[in-house]
Amino acid sequence: MLKPLGDRVIIEVVEAEEKTASGIVLPDSAKEKPQEGKVVAVGSGRILDNGAKEALEVETGDHIIFSKYSGTEVTFEGKDLLIIRESDILAVIK
Amino acid sequence: MLKPLGDRVIIEVVEAEEKTASGIVLPDSAKEKPQEGKVVAVGSGRILDNGAKEALEVETGDHIIFSKYSGTEVTFEGKDLLIIRESDILAVIK
Amino acid sequence: MLKPLGDRVIIEVVEAEEKTASGIVLPDSAKEKPQEGKVVAVGSGRILDNGAKEALEVETGDHIIFSKYSGTEVTFEGKDLLIIRESDILAVIK
Amino acid sequence: MLKPLGDRVIIEVVEAEEKTASGIVLPDSAKEKPQEGKVVAVGSGRILDNGAKEALEVETGDHIIFSKYSGTEVTFEGKDLLIIRESDILAVIK
Amino acid sequence: MLKPLGDRVIIEVVEAEEKTASGIVLPDSAKEKPQEGKVVAVGSGRILDNGAKEALEVETGDHIIFSKYSGTEVTFEGKDLLIIRESDILAVIK
Amino acid sequence: MLKPLGDRVIIEVVEAEEKTASGIVLPDSAKEKPQEGKVVAVGSGRILDNGAKEALEVETGDHIIFSKYSGTEVTFEGKDLLIIRESDILAVIK
Amino acid sequence: MLKPLGDRVIIEVVEAEEKTASGIVLPDSAKEKPQEGKVVAVGSGRILDNGAKEALEVETGDHIIFSKYSGTEVTFEGKDLLIIRESDILAVIK
Repeated sequence: MLKPLGDRVIIEVVEAEEKTASGIVLPDSAKEKPQEGKVVAVGSGRILDNGAKEALEVETGDHIIFSKYSGTEVTFEGKDLLIIRESDILAVIK
Repeated sequence: MLKPLGDRVIIEVVEAEEKTASGIVLPDSAKEKPQEGKVVAVGSGRILDNGAKEALEVETGDHIIFSKYSGTEVTFEGKDLLIIRESDILAVIK
Repeated sequence: MLKPLGDRVIIEVVEAEEKTASGIVLPDSAKEKPQEGKVVAVGSGRILDNGAKEALEVETGDHIIFSKYSGTEVTFEGKDLLIIRESDILAVIK
Repeated sequence: MLKPLGDRVIIEVVEAEEKTASGIVLPDSAKEKPQEGKVVAVGSGRILDNGAKEALEVETGDHIIFSKYSGTEVTFEGKDLLIIRESDILAVIK
Repeated sequence: MLKPLGDRVIIEVVEAEEKTASGIVLPDSAKEKPQEGKVVAVGSGRILDNGAKEALEVETGDHIIFSKYSGTEVTFEGKDLLIIRESDILAVIK
Repeated sequence: MLKPLGDRVIIEVVEAEEKTASGIVLPDSAKEKPQEGKVVAVGSGRILDNGAKEALEVETGDHIIFSKYSGTEVTFEGKDLLIIRESDILAVIK
Repeated sequence: MLKPLGDRVIIEVVEAEEKTASGIVLPDSAKEKPQEGKVVAVGSGRILDNGAKEALEVETGDHIIFSKYSGTEVTFEGKDLLIIRESDILAVIK
């Protein structure tokens, strides 16, 4: 298992389908939008200036939208994962 | 539903009409001004250095003016939305 | 009505007369000085690190001097306004 | 009257004489040194992170030395003044 | 023995095998990913603004993933080590 | 008298002799080292974030070593002085 | 004696031997590694935001490893010394 440090979050990227049902390739501009992912592990939180540890807002299993090009790719046990900071997460899909 | 994180706000952009009633296209300079939008979701707030969570000043439904070119575009359930930070909001139209 | 957010202030610019009484155009250097304006709306204040909200020093109706080229222009109900941060205000004319 | 905001100070510049008694023009290097001024108005102080307002060290009437090229020139009621931050004041002449 | 200062950590890099079992050299892109290491010593922690010392999250013996190209190489008692800051550690392998 | 503001210190530079006893001019590299000075006045201290005023570590009369090229030259009552921040002082010679 | 200010430390550099026993000059890459030094004096500590003074982790006599190219060279009583900040010290050799 991978346990991220601090305010980091590990996600599995949900690849946007590059072809529509009818097989039309989407134009590039459509692919510049932020990406969707699924949270697979969260860090123990961020240390505030007063010494308290602030837990993350997201939880394992959350479906999220995050800034494209953020984070570091890592392959672990055959899976391609991405380690990002929680601040790169824009919103949770509920 | 999309729930923004931290001090982020999700808005629907209110497109300025590019033609006046008489059909005259406005000059570019007029379009460089800030944009109008409607708040559709707000984050739970910003964590202060003392650990308290500061709620946002804007609420869902507010009509706002925000800095052009700020934020990240996202398409969700067929709608074009923009995720911005509250600090990019200049004023609320009341 | 426009309600600015945080430590922002909305002002009406008081245009310096570009011609003197005798019709002489002032040289450019004279126009590089800071501008005068009238405060038409003030934000609710700046959040300090300890969570308190610090009210602004200026009030609606104040005549102020502010740094030229600061802020964002906005046209609202036919009036040309400028949204600036209070820190761009140099002094109040009393 | 002009009331500066925050930690700002308004000064009248004391022009260094460019010619010595014997009429010799001083070399440029001599003019690169900091300038002397007289404080004509002081702001109400700087807000600290704990919300307290820290009064300025200088007072109206003080003769000071300040960093050349700092501040913003303003003409008010026919006088050429300079609005600077207190941090641009190097020392008080006592 | 080497005792790192503050929030620093000393690690032994676990070299990724550059050839697969069948002898095929992996493409460069695969080598751009973060590196694996083993923690051999940890600093006494980071001083917070309130004066408290925050202990590190990682411990001696932990297997970690860290940002490539971070830290300073040092050879000590014949071993090649790397001194990095804890903030360069992405995750712990458990 | 000159009273420096805040964490500033006024010093008289102690010129390193550019010629040795035998008249040999020292190479340039030797002159790139930090300079020696004598403290002639100290500011009342630096305001901390909690509002307390932290007195300076150096005192009038101290012989110090400071970073070359730091500070602002000023001529006062015929003496060439240098106004520097205490953080530019490297060490006190005791 | 030289007493460093604040979080500064004075060290004597321990020169790495540039030739091995057999007289072979080490390649440049080997000399890019951090340097070893011996602490000869330490400052009284760093002032935290809450006004407390945090003592340094290193002590006079410690053998340390520090970042190459950090600090300021000074010659004092015929000895070549280096004044660095404690944050440039990577580890203590115990």
